[in-house]
Amino acid sequence: MQYGHFDDDAREYVITRPDTPRSWSNYLGSTEYGAIITNNAGGYSFFKSAAQGRFTRLRFNSVPTDQPGRYFYLRDNDDGDFWSTSWQPVGKPLGSYKSTCRHGTAYTVIESEYSNIKTEATYFVPLGQNFEYWRLKITNNDSAPRDLSLFTYVEFANNWTVIQDLINLQFSQYIVKADVIDNVIQCAVLGNVPADESDFQNNDQGRWSWMSLSGADVSGFETSREKFIGDYRTYANPVAVESGQCGGSLAHGDNACGSFQANVMLQPGETREIVVMLGIGKAEIGRETTIEYSKSARVEAELQKLKSSWHAKLGRFIVKTPDADFDHMINVWNAYNCLITFAWSRSASLVYNGERDGLGFCDTVQDILGVLPALQDEARERLELMLTGQLSSGGAMPVVKPFAHRTGHEADLPPEEYRSDDCLWLFNTVPAYVAETGDLDFYRKVLPFADAGETTVTGHLRRAIEFNLVRSGAHGLPCGLSAD
Amino acid sequence: MQYGHFDDDAREYVITRPDTPRSWSNYLGSTEYGAIITNNAGGYSFFKSAAQGRFTRLRFNSVPTDQPGRYFYLRDNDDGDFWSTSWQPVGKPLGSYKSTCRHGTAYTVIESEYSNIKTEATYFVPLGQNFEYWRLKITNNDSAPRDLSLFTYVEFANNWTVIQDLINLQFSQYIVKADVIDNVIQCAVLGNVPADESDFQNNDQGRWSWMSLSGADVSGFETSREKFIGDYRTYANPVAVESGQCGGSLAHGDNACGSFQANVMLQPGETREIVVMLGIGKAEIGRETTIEYSKSARVEAELQKLKSSWHAKLGRFIVKTPDADFDHMINVWNAYNCLITFAWSRSASLVYNGERDGLGFCDTVQDILGVLPALQDEARERLELMLTGQLSSGGAMPVVKPFAHRTGHEADLPPEEYRSDDCLWLFNTVPAYVAETGDLDFYRKVLPFADAGETTVTGHLRRAIEFNLVRSGAHGLPCGLSAD
Repeated sequence: MQYGHFDDDAREYVITRPDTPRSWSNYLGSTEYGAIITNNAGGYSFFKSAAQGRFTRLRFNSVPTDQPGRYFYLRDNDDGDFWSTSWQPVGKPLGSYKSTCRHGTAYTVIESEYSNIKTEATYFVPLGQNFEYWRLKITNNDSAPRDLSLFTYVEFANNWTVIQDLINLQFSQYIVKADVIDNVIQCAVLGNVPADESDFQNNDQGRWSWMSLSGADVSGFETSREKFIGDYRTYANPVAVESGQCGGSLAHGDNACGSFQANVMLQPGETREIVVMLGIGKAEIGRETTIEYSKSARVEAELQKLKSSWHAKLGRFIVKTPDADFDHMINVWNAYNCLITFAWSRSASLVYNGERDGLGFCDTVQDILGVLPALQDEARERLELMLTGQLSSGGAMPVVKPFAHRTGHEADLPPEEYRSDDCLWLFNTVPAYVAETGDLDFYRKVLPFADAGETTVTGHLRRAIEFNLVRSGAHGLPCGLSAD
Repeated sequence: MQYGHFDDDAREYVITRPDTPRSWSNYLGSTEYGAIITNNAGGYSFFKSAAQGRFTRLRFNSVPTDQPGRYFYLRDNDDGDFWSTSWQPVGKPLGSYKSTCRHGTAYTVIESEYSNIKTEATYFVPLGQNFEYWRLKITNNDSAPRDLSLFTYVEFANNWTVIQDLINLQFSQYIVKADVIDNVIQCAVLGNVPADESDFQNNDQGRWSWMSLSGADVSGFETSREKFIGDYRTYANPVAVESGQCGGSLAHGDNACGSFQANVMLQPGETREIVVMLGIGKAEIGRETTIEYSKSARVEAELQKLKSSWHAKLGRFIVKTPDADFDHMINVWNAYNCLITFAWSRSASLVYNGERDGLGFCDTVQDILGVLPALQDEARERLELMLTGQLSSGGAMPVVKPFAHRTGHEADLPPEEYRSDDCLWLFNTVPAYVAETGDLDFYRKVLPFADAGETTVTGHLRRAIEFNLVRSGAHGLPCGLSAD
């Protein structure tokens, strides 16, 4: 079966059949504001950490798969028929519904054609920003005017710590409050408690996110999931969409969602552009950001800026061989995957729920290798962080936690927790970094150990060898120690 | 709106409208084999602990609510129409589908009427057993013979530790293996690793559960959830049910389920009884248990034994007042809820996911009060456990973990973890126990402290007072300490 193809010129993978056997996911954003999106618009968003900053909800291992996500529903107000601009969640028969998904470099475009209405939804996080765009173009390819209603949907988490959101309903259901202020939906978690900018890991602080809609008048909203979906219904047939009218609920307790309704009359051949923005902060930030960023030209400029930035990174190393598949992998997808892995290590995916946000030592030091052609500065920064995760014994902490790491103040490990290999991966990565950059001075840079003391990078490497030599067995061979 | 009524003679609550705004749940089983079931047959089962022994899956805070569960699907092979014997998950229009749910004392009966077919499904765990019954009676009220197919459904967990099952798909998907042996479905988690009977908390051991169907020939099965449901489908329209034919999948990796198919031809007025059993252990245990317990008379006898046992407990204290609601509460539901709370503390419900299985000290000592009229022996056993959760300082451990508690070997608490009130609740419960039983010798019973040393129950009480007197403030009043 053929589900899609590579488009190397655009650096996109194009999925032409939406009913893929498994969800096909892409990553949006940066290490500040990250997101996962699938070919059916499923996925979630997070601030700084998929474990402790998850502010929208995806249900893992769900039936059907990869729900909820970032949905646009369309309703034909003449006959009451409705669908989604991604095939799922409504899931119209594929005989009459066409879907194309383009997973690009930190953006995803999902097109649909159904009932003579064509849509193009583009999802991305602009460079350096703490919000995401959902840009929707709706075109009437019918010969008659069409009276449509559009509904957005995102499901907010009750708690930004993903495990609490999943299991602790007795608490998390009662700390969520949604409001609509100046046409911006605001979702507050522990909104009566101050924010604690100094400690990201403090879960007992207020957290806010917002959603706005531009390009059409807002004619209604729901912020209560129960009111939007309705009891014993699903994302395939929300009562608000079926009935064609949002009721203006303000969630307080239970589950919050973001749904705006916009009624759109389209003449034959007319295209309308709607811009939905979803971000971090209170409604006021949402309003200011919307004013600055929601205009059509600005959205397009931000998209082009994002593409240029990613394409420049990927363009630093290009091969052309007789094997097209080899070229796809080397020129786009292997490099892209290395960059994404570098950003989030193994903390955010559809098969691991991201309750961990530490950097595994050997994983991370290896991951740096994959991005050296593209990201020298970030690579050095990460490499320096990992070097400060080495203890003065020469062995390394198995996991370095960026939000909690206290260079020079970490405790030494009990002997049984050391692994022999962690610190040895520095011998792959440090020389590779220097070879790529020519930065020979790096060897002389003085960096602290995790627990106490400091030395040059060369000193760190020397300590790593000594650590292993001291821990040799009866025949003089270094021991494997705890793992790997 | 009226959703149901009390039936005090039967000690049941009767739900006559299945579309309750929230799931209405009941508890089955014992502290060895526990289960939750809702009025739409949603819920999960667990062995010893809802946190570490969860072997079937319910998705919390799901859309729609309380799925999956213990389902029977029926398919009319003449016209292809299908439904479930609980209203959900198929959710036929309530104009043509009738459902009555009777939540009784550790059993639940769900009746349905649709398409001239009447069903009665009775769910319970027989006393002292590690399995549950789903007994289904199907009656043809039509004037013509009916050609039906029956499908069972339960979703096995990938990992009996509920948090791992929820988040760690990268691991848990690959340790599940289902087989069908002698007509018994066996689901193994880490089946290539030995069981560790000595340590329930060892999550790296093999775990097995089984399902059988009696009363009709098995004409097919699925053990892969993906094969039973089908991609992009839901519990409302599994492909196996819609097509009328299970394909015989053996799940290995991914998600396992238990689905038997039985083709049942019913003459007008005929009733057929099907017995499904779901339990702990390998297929061989399932087969032996099925041979011994699956006959119709045995099932009925076990149900009557269960009812008698519960009704006897509840019957020890009966009031008759002019207020029927007061009588419902005192004679049945308050006492029943106290017994269930005593059994599982706060570890298993639909609003807390049950990742904890410790006994909160003050909760548990109070909970004992509620069951004194019904369960003196178990109450004393629990009370003695809690007394051994008191440290020699006189203060109590905030949480006593039955699977991990090491009387006489627990560490003392850091001062900031003590609460003043925990140990003082013993003054409510110990005298109440003695008053209920007349067992004055209990005061002289010698019991160890959690950390070291031992004394009589009176000595424990004395130590509790001393603990608080020593921790008094400037004005001689005992301090509140950490919490409560």
